[in-house]
Amino acid sequence: MLNIAIAGLGTVGAGVVNLLHKNAGLIAVRSGKEIKIKAISARDKNRKRDCDLSGINWHDNPLDLAALPDVQVVVELIGGADGVAYELAQATLKAGKHLVTANKALLAKHGLALAKLAEANKVQIFFEAAVAGGIPVIKTLREGLAGNNILSVRGILNGTCNYILTRMREADLTFGEALQEAQSLGYAEADPSADVDGHDTAHKLALLAAIAFGCEPNTADMQIEGIRHITPYDLQFTEELGCRIKLLGVARMTQAGLVQHAGPVLVPKHSPLASVDGALNAVMIGGDFVGDLTLEGQGAGAKPTASAVLADIIDLASGKAMQPFGVATKDLKKIPLIDATSKARYYLRLQVMDKPGVVAAVAAILGEAGISMEAMIQRGKPTVYNVPVVITTHEAQKEAIQGAVSLIAKLPTTVEKPCLMEIED
Amino acid sequence: MLNIAIAGLGTVGAGVVNLLHKNAGLIAVRSGKEIKIKAISARDKNRKRDCDLSGINWHDNPLDLAALPDVQVVVELIGGADGVAYELAQATLKAGKHLVTANKALLAKHGLALAKLAEANKVQIFFEAAVAGGIPVIKTLREGLAGNNILSVRGILNGTCNYILTRMREADLTFGEALQEAQSLGYAEADPSADVDGHDTAHKLALLAAIAFGCEPNTADMQIEGIRHITPYDLQFTEELGCRIKLLGVARMTQAGLVQHAGPVLVPKHSPLASVDGALNAVMIGGDFVGDLTLEGQGAGAKPTASAVLADIIDLASGKAMQPFGVATKDLKKIPLIDATSKARYYLRLQVMDKPGVVAAVAAILGEAGISMEAMIQRGKPTVYNVPVVITTHEAQKEAIQGAVSLIAKLPTTVEKPCLMEIED
Repeated sequence: MLNIAIAGLGTVGAGVVNLLHKNAGLIAVRSGKEIKIKAISARDKNRKRDCDLSGINWHDNPLDLAALPDVQVVVELIGGADGVAYELAQATLKAGKHLVTANKALLAKHGLALAKLAEANKVQIFFEAAVAGGIPVIKTLREGLAGNNILSVRGILNGTCNYILTRMREADLTFGEALQEAQSLGYAEADPSADVDGHDTAHKLALLAAIAFGCEPNTADMQIEGIRHITPYDLQFTEELGCRIKLLGVARMTQAGLVQHAGPVLVPKHSPLASVDGALNAVMIGGDFVGDLTLEGQGAGAKPTASAVLADIIDLASGKAMQPFGVATKDLKKIPLIDATSKARYYLRLQVMDKPGVVAAVAAILGEAGISMEAMIQRGKPTVYNVPVVITTHEAQKEAIQGAVSLIAKLPTTVEKPCLMEIED
Repeated sequence: MLNIAIAGLGTVGAGVVNLLHKNAGLIAVRSGKEIKIKAISARDKNRKRDCDLSGINWHDNPLDLAALPDVQVVVELIGGADGVAYELAQATLKAGKHLVTANKALLAKHGLALAKLAEANKVQIFFEAAVAGGIPVIKTLREGLAGNNILSVRGILNGTCNYILTRMREADLTFGEALQEAQSLGYAEADPSADVDGHDTAHKLALLAAIAFGCEPNTADMQIEGIRHITPYDLQFTEELGCRIKLLGVARMTQAGLVQHAGPVLVPKHSPLASVDGALNAVMIGGDFVGDLTLEGQGAGAKPTASAVLADIIDLASGKAMQPFGVATKDLKKIPLIDATSKARYYLRLQVMDKPGVVAAVAAILGEAGISMEAMIQRGKPTVYNVPVVITTHEAQKEAIQGAVSLIAKLPTTVEKPCLMEIED
């Protein structure tokens, strides 16, 4: 018998309760023991919920769960990088109980401190549900590919953004229209900024990179960009270039150091990531022996996320022990990010005034920065005052092109924030 | 320190030795202990090999490895369902050592007996490398999705066949031409029958289905078909139907029972499996909570397979215990296959004499069997004597259409074995 307590009964919490009820029999056979929900805590006891809580003890204060003597695992589904979620995580580990959590913001910020606390108390932190919903990517990286020197991790880690970009492409919608549609379908929050500004992707990427490269989770030094500035023009132009725009979290180890960023990228259509549409998530992992491995599936929602939470609970029931980030905290390295000096081909879309000399001024700035253009497209119906210009470059250093683009943005003839995106090969 | 012994030093064996040398440092950090190759055995001691064997004890007789007192894990990479591989597997388990194997034929035939032996001796059998090379699909099914009631498993499990089908489509080759190309590139054996006749796929599918559904591996009752009879016509016609031909292993649980077969199937182009080309493998798993999850990667070759073998060894180093098929052998069910009464839409390509009344005779047979045609295409250049006719059907019972096709095959106007394939929706 393994007794668990659940803090937080939103969509995912209710999903976990339902999964444990529906599949109790097969879970007991597979894990060799019965898994029982002893206690729960959530904000409002009287709220109607889509799950059966009979026979489960209710606690108004989630922190009580960490103190229950007959509970071995606390499942934290409250959310948020700080506050009660962090307090509960600390209290759980200090009380010698295992922690299962879906909270990427918490782990991206406090993962190292919590891992040290888990080590000191000889308990486990499992967080499969924190990244890519139902896709077992933590297990794959931490165990399935444990023999590999990991070279890269690239993922579509935010279903909201992938849905918006897919609908913009398929239905020729603006960002605002696609966001509204996503909100009406429940794919996006009323305040969508954590998703569409790239922070959620960055948190998840930091966790994957920590396991992949044995480093401390690092979002502080990461360049993070969202998708608000992407227009239907960009979708059309990239299609012509044989690419799809995806909001990716990318971490790759180079000879010079670690490149790690979250933002929109042009992915060639033949890449397995290019055809991942709608609210799906996918992660592509490159290893020195396994080659490229791609996992694709439901990245959010009550049921897929509950599937991931249960995998962790069953692992704990079978007595599994694992370092949260794959190695002991003393072996986790601080790896500096070297994005500024990394090189890539770039896509640059400008919205400029439709008059002579404008393109010459842009070309001059790029030339002075040592950036060589591959192609330029100026087409489409200009509005009364301005016209889109798309430039693709040969390989350029990131800080060089970012510097040039910030000069271009200041030209009096540039009428909108330029859209700059890396092109993957 | 974990000491292992390796039996068999072909491509994969050498790959495992090289991986353990190259990544020794990170493997020690991740698994918390050093992993050491104490002993090896292979057929010819004097053969030049692409790996460093210095400091490793050589044994001419692989069975010796099971008796070595300081070895905890024997890695069986000999191959073959019986003979020395089976003897070594038995001896290893009886000696209280863990078994790691890449041998699908062995496990498909003797998996249940070996699982019982492992239980009796309280040791483990790990076989990630037996299915889909570097893709951690065993771990995903057995652990990552352990909370799910699995509904279906569908996989491109044989890279040789996928390469041949891809080249037939891309380069308009016949089966024979594509096979020859695959052989010259080392993707196909001199005797390709285990691959192209579907047996390798069937073995792998039986292992996946055993874990997915908690049943004994069963190839004896499985319909197994290869790809020798597929022609360039079929590739062209299916393309027009919006589908791709893939040699799939399919296992799905229905209300009536388990459907399980290995053979060519028409997969719609929007399926993640449709775009898996060349020698790649992919597995799509449907679970009641996770939804559809797809894993795609290298299904064969020294390095990807070594990656899977190492994942198993590292799991054993960290003290992991797992039932081979996910549940205790006493809980494994015998689930009868109900393919005969299952229903699907079908693609049927006939090669018939180009004269009046031929199609009417075919239509009459289908009509008598209660099979309703959806469309018929007769087109393309007829040769002097015959012409291809393609029929797609509405949903039909498998035994009904197979019966009708065997009657059609006997018509004097049918000049080639008909090609019948299920169409996936």
